[in-house]
Amino acid sequence: MPQTPPKTAIDALVFDAYGTLYDVASVTAICDSHFPASGAKISEIWRQKQLEYTWLSSLMGRYQDFWQITAAGLRFACGALKLELSEETFRLIMENYLQLDSYPEVPAALEGLAEKMPLAILSNGSPEMLIKVTQHNGFNRFIKEVLSVHELRIFKPAPQVYDLAVRKLGVAKEKIGFVSSNAWDAAGAKAFGFQVFWINRFDRHPEQLDLPPDHEIRTLDQIPPLIF
Amino acid sequence: MPQTPPKTAIDALVFDAYGTLYDVASVTAICDSHFPASGAKISEIWRQKQLEYTWLSSLMGRYQDFWQITAAGLRFACGALKLELSEETFRLIMENYLQLDSYPEVPAALEGLAEKMPLAILSNGSPEMLIKVTQHNGFNRFIKEVLSVHELRIFKPAPQVYDLAVRKLGVAKEKIGFVSSNAWDAAGAKAFGFQVFWINRFDRHPEQLDLPPDHEIRTLDQIPPLIF
Repeated sequence: MPQTPPKTAIDALVFDAYGTLYDVASVTAICDSHFPASGAKISEIWRQKQLEYTWLSSLMGRYQDFWQITAAGLRFACGALKLELSEETFRLIMENYLQLDSYPEVPAALEGLAEKMPLAILSNGSPEMLIKVTQHNGFNRFIKEVLSVHELRIFKPAPQVYDLAVRKLGVAKEKIGFVSSNAWDAAGAKAFGFQVFWINRFDRHPEQLDLPPDHEIRTLDQIPPLIF
Repeated sequence: MPQTPPKTAIDALVFDAYGTLYDVASVTAICDSHFPASGAKISEIWRQKQLEYTWLSSLMGRYQDFWQITAAGLRFACGALKLELSEETFRLIMENYLQLDSYPEVPAALEGLAEKMPLAILSNGSPEMLIKVTQHNGFNRFIKEVLSVHELRIFKPAPQVYDLAVRKLGVAKEKIGFVSSNAWDAAGAKAFGFQVFWINRFDRHPEQLDLPPDHEIRTLDQIPPLIF
């Protein structure tokens, strides 16, 4: 008799924001509109520097919020590519970050999951950034808690960031499913003790950190069969 | 009457190792010999992942030594490029890290500086890696202390790493000149309170971390006129 694989016992789901729920590809399009043919390169360097600056400022003990870090990353990217970034263009590109759309499967997936358990966002984003982009997508009706690292003044993957979700949701870490498309974030969440779903949307190579996720899937709508 | 600019008062010099004293470009050549035409891409991804893993493992509180992290970075780079890395090739490429040559101006520059003040290396490298590459270049006669982050179990730019040099050299941080080609390392050293010389060998764009170095120079032989 074929055995059904045991389901993962999860009482709450916590989602990363950028790249997981919200599609950051539109950033490339707006960069391209201001700097023709350079959009892809700008957004690649920008994202890399944005992440590096979260890690570096955390390790130095010199927190700056994610809006400042995102701005610094954009300035670096344009500077490194010898592109003149006017204050007007800077403002327009940055504002795009507050109006990111979600990936196509996300609204229906969140709606279905929200009927079963509490959902939260746990992100590096500053509170204002997270509130705006979540409102823009109308996700407030699905998401119980929008949690920012800001009150801790340190970024992922510091364990105290993941612990914020435990404290705010009142759910044991073993019963929390953490969902991220960022492989390093998935590794940090696994190190902390969450049950981890790595959304590998773009067929990326897994990190070599000896912290594999519990589940590697492609889109959010693949979560329910794993837990219900 | 023309004024001579004031000299920087420095009682000891502390050098980063990889990319600052030791030329990591030979890594590209050996990767290219095993994976024709892919050497540059492998070493670019490898270096990026190596750094990322130092920051990520530090923030997670899961230190692994730099040899393990360097190995993980190499495995990631080959995996991401869909290149088959045999254990034999892995071993040969990794061993190259223990035999890096210095940049051409380094031996004479260190010799001259060592006559004036104590010199130290402060590196992410594991003690064994640092001892081997320093012996390979015969720099033990110039370098008083070879300091590794290993005893602290955290990587740069955590401030306690830079403080290790203060403790081991017995020189106040304001009187230590820190020399690195890594802009983020220079920023970390500046945040800590060293006098910082950024060796911008390859005309890189400065980091946007509001921590500019005291001096931006191209090679180590430009240090003496700034301090003597």
